[in-house]
Amino acid sequence: MSSSRLAAAYDPEHFRRLGHQLVDQLADHLARTLRREGPVLPWAPPATNVERFPADFPEEPSGDLTALLSRVIEGSHHLHHPRYVGHQVSAPVPLSALCDFASSLLNNGMAVYEMGPVSTAMEHNVLRWMAGVLGMPEGARGVLTSGGSAGNLTALLAARQAKAGFDAWNGGATAGPPLTVLVPESTHYSVSRATKVMGWGAEGVTPVPVDARYRLRPEALEEVLAAAKRAGRRPIAVVASAGSTATGAFDPLEAVADFCEKHGLWFHVDGAHGASTALSPTYRHRVKGIERADSVVWDAHKLMMMPALITAVLFREGNRSFEAFAQEASYLFTGQDTRPWSDVALRTLECTKEMMALKLYASLSVLGTKLFADSVTSTFDLSRRFAERLQAAGDFELAVPPDCNIVCFRHTPQGVPASELDALQVRLRESLVTSGDFYLVQTTLGGRVWLRTTIINPLTTDGDLDALLEALRRAA
Amino acid sequence: MSSSRLAAAYDPEHFRRLGHQLVDQLADHLARTLRREGPVLPWAPPATNVERFPADFPEEPSGDLTALLSRVIEGSHHLHHPRYVGHQVSAPVPLSALCDFASSLLNNGMAVYEMGPVSTAMEHNVLRWMAGVLGMPEGARGVLTSGGSAGNLTALLAARQAKAGFDAWNGGATAGPPLTVLVPESTHYSVSRATKVMGWGAEGVTPVPVDARYRLRPEALEEVLAAAKRAGRRPIAVVASAGSTATGAFDPLEAVADFCEKHGLWFHVDGAHGASTALSPTYRHRVKGIERADSVVWDAHKLMMMPALITAVLFREGNRSFEAFAQEASYLFTGQDTRPWSDVALRTLECTKEMMALKLYASLSVLGTKLFADSVTSTFDLSRRFAERLQAAGDFELAVPPDCNIVCFRHTPQGVPASELDALQVRLRESLVTSGDFYLVQTTLGGRVWLRTTIINPLTTDGDLDALLEALRRAA
Repeated sequence: MSSSRLAAAYDPEHFRRLGHQLVDQLADHLARTLRREGPVLPWAPPATNVERFPADFPEEPSGDLTALLSRVIEGSHHLHHPRYVGHQVSAPVPLSALCDFASSLLNNGMAVYEMGPVSTAMEHNVLRWMAGVLGMPEGARGVLTSGGSAGNLTALLAARQAKAGFDAWNGGATAGPPLTVLVPESTHYSVSRATKVMGWGAEGVTPVPVDARYRLRPEALEEVLAAAKRAGRRPIAVVASAGSTATGAFDPLEAVADFCEKHGLWFHVDGAHGASTALSPTYRHRVKGIERADSVVWDAHKLMMMPALITAVLFREGNRSFEAFAQEASYLFTGQDTRPWSDVALRTLECTKEMMALKLYASLSVLGTKLFADSVTSTFDLSRRFAERLQAAGDFELAVPPDCNIVCFRHTPQGVPASELDALQVRLRESLVTSGDFYLVQTTLGGRVWLRTTIINPLTTDGDLDALLEALRRAA
Repeated sequence: MSSSRLAAAYDPEHFRRLGHQLVDQLADHLARTLRREGPVLPWAPPATNVERFPADFPEEPSGDLTALLSRVIEGSHHLHHPRYVGHQVSAPVPLSALCDFASSLLNNGMAVYEMGPVSTAMEHNVLRWMAGVLGMPEGARGVLTSGGSAGNLTALLAARQAKAGFDAWNGGATAGPPLTVLVPESTHYSVSRATKVMGWGAEGVTPVPVDARYRLRPEALEEVLAAAKRAGRRPIAVVASAGSTATGAFDPLEAVADFCEKHGLWFHVDGAHGASTALSPTYRHRVKGIERADSVVWDAHKLMMMPALITAVLFREGNRSFEAFAQEASYLFTGQDTRPWSDVALRTLECTKEMMALKLYASLSVLGTKLFADSVTSTFDLSRRFAERLQAAGDFELAVPPDCNIVCFRHTPQGVPASELDALQVRLRESLVTSGDFYLVQTTLGGRVWLRTTIINPLTTDGDLDALLEALRRAA
């Protein structure tokens, strides 16, 4: 009984049949979604989906995978729909999903080289290529990790070890003065979360004022640094955003680099969203100075059309990568050299990891690099045009001219008093999202509620954005 | 140019053709590997693979995905080969790879409910089912996260917030006495790594002696606790292993639970490897007491045949899950309730995450729960028989009778002096691994080198293990 159930579960011919069915199912779904058929988000409240997908598992094999996946596809959020303009999550280029399929079957875990010989080599080379795109020096190295939050934590752990002035890894937080990093007020929550994880408390981040476009004000850095020191904190780094989450603002990286150099501070760029800008000949000037960073976090699952998660943490001096986790485990690292670059668990939060590099390596190899430049350039161009249209319209207000593909705005129809505009945006978003016609999000800027769009699907058009404005007008 | 490249990259019919090719490619590979054709690990040094897979990407689409993936499949480690008996990484049940394929295309990121309505609901239900398997109470809840290391960190962050006696999250490590957790000497490196990440230093873990079978000695706990307090540390938790990494030892969970209850300590079980034991009616007594843990980490990518990564962090009191990361971001959490269970980024290290639950939910739904019990029972049974054979053989030494599916042993052929036995094991492993005939690892126990096998592939047979011993004899 037991062995026949196991043999059946691993039967290659059964797998082949199910696989062919799934390919057709996903290709059909993709075709429909790209044609804008069906809702973007088939909205239902959590309780409904909890009921629809109960954990009432049978004891014996009895289910129908194709039927189950049909329901999953139907009920999921459809990021390939050109009217998806929500969070910074990509509409994956389909080839990358094929690579993840292969990765999941091969399951080469990569904690040590032997557990992922090809994926480790690909990771090494993809990271060097990415460092090259950013203009980092030859010796730059890094790791791939499970998302930007883990990436920021990894980079800040390396910064701590390099710049604290004491051995925070072995000695602990009490072995020296309390640490802090300078961050723009617009920084992503994962940065202050990382410092709180590390036991630096709420003052582990020291906010630097931003200007009217939500960019770090470099002229404020000296005073903020001095104030942090006066308060008994040891500032070890500046974290700049490229770009920020709420508005996509790009901090002035050159000025921050100069400041860090002058004061011996670690320069970290949270480029989770915007480091991809370096791929675009048209827009790469926005990240000028990123090549001087000590560490950069870059999510390929945002502007590089990869499925989540694939985050690069790049270090200008490659050996800094070993300082994040100054540790080894005897059962894992069997060689004489305790710091081989190829045993990546030495340098990542994860022990076993996914074959993350494969999808990016294969997509670049097969689809070519220009596609990735195209995607950045065209979504940024489209965002600029959208912002211009919002500015030209009398009944919309643009929050700030966009630095990238994130555009925040409000609908301000005649006759609605200013005091009711916040509530209106919330209602409008809810109406469009629950209807399934569009997906967009909202954010709070300067105490007011704004609609927020990320134009991240390269198949979104000007027509889709015109339709969005029309739909908002109708809903109001 | 730009838009035609993008349209081509997203073309559903091209995706369909490539998909069907890949299904056949993977099914053929699986069939060959299950028939034991080809090497387990096609060994090549890192430099060779770095050369084989260079980052010389073309600008225009030009590559052949099928050819590239052929080389990837060929050069990767073949975990479905029944002679893979190495690290604790599963030979994924093929259906789970199909689910990952769908997940990667759908890419529902799940930071907030709207970004993954189905996967969020599935995660909720799968976690409740897992908590039920462990016998945890009704109110148990948790999250899925990217691996056991991230899982242990998440659980210990919750423990810190619950038991430090001060607000370590906002106040930082210096707001109270230095903290420590009691851990068996055999604990996984990720536990002490987590405490070092949190700024507790090397003394953030306080080792508890283990017995001859590498299990935590509960009678030592009182004295270890008292000594840590005398040294000025505040112990907040005991971390027990189920089972340990090196030998698969299961700590006495009931005794640890009693001790934690008595002293008001957090009881964490690192069940990354062994929590799955609860699935097997034959072996579930090994984890008796796990239902009393405050938190449990359980990797489904180890004994549940899932591809990496899918780790459950379960909290006996579900709301503890919110205490790990006491934070919110206004752009993400738009509702009035700032702690909705369904916006999982509130409770996970990751912001955007993969649709992790789908593969496990679908595998349980379609393949039935007994398969998972079978896999545990049969690999544990096989390990026990293997250990008996090692004990019976005159030329092998068993390290300890196995508690689960990890078996450590040495080859001790006649005539080899004791002083040369360590070097012999290293050479033997190297010889078998580089030949591609078997994959096993090594570990150091009591200052001596042991061969280490994890019988995690449910298709491994007694015959494969007999052949392993014969191969070791020949190689010696």
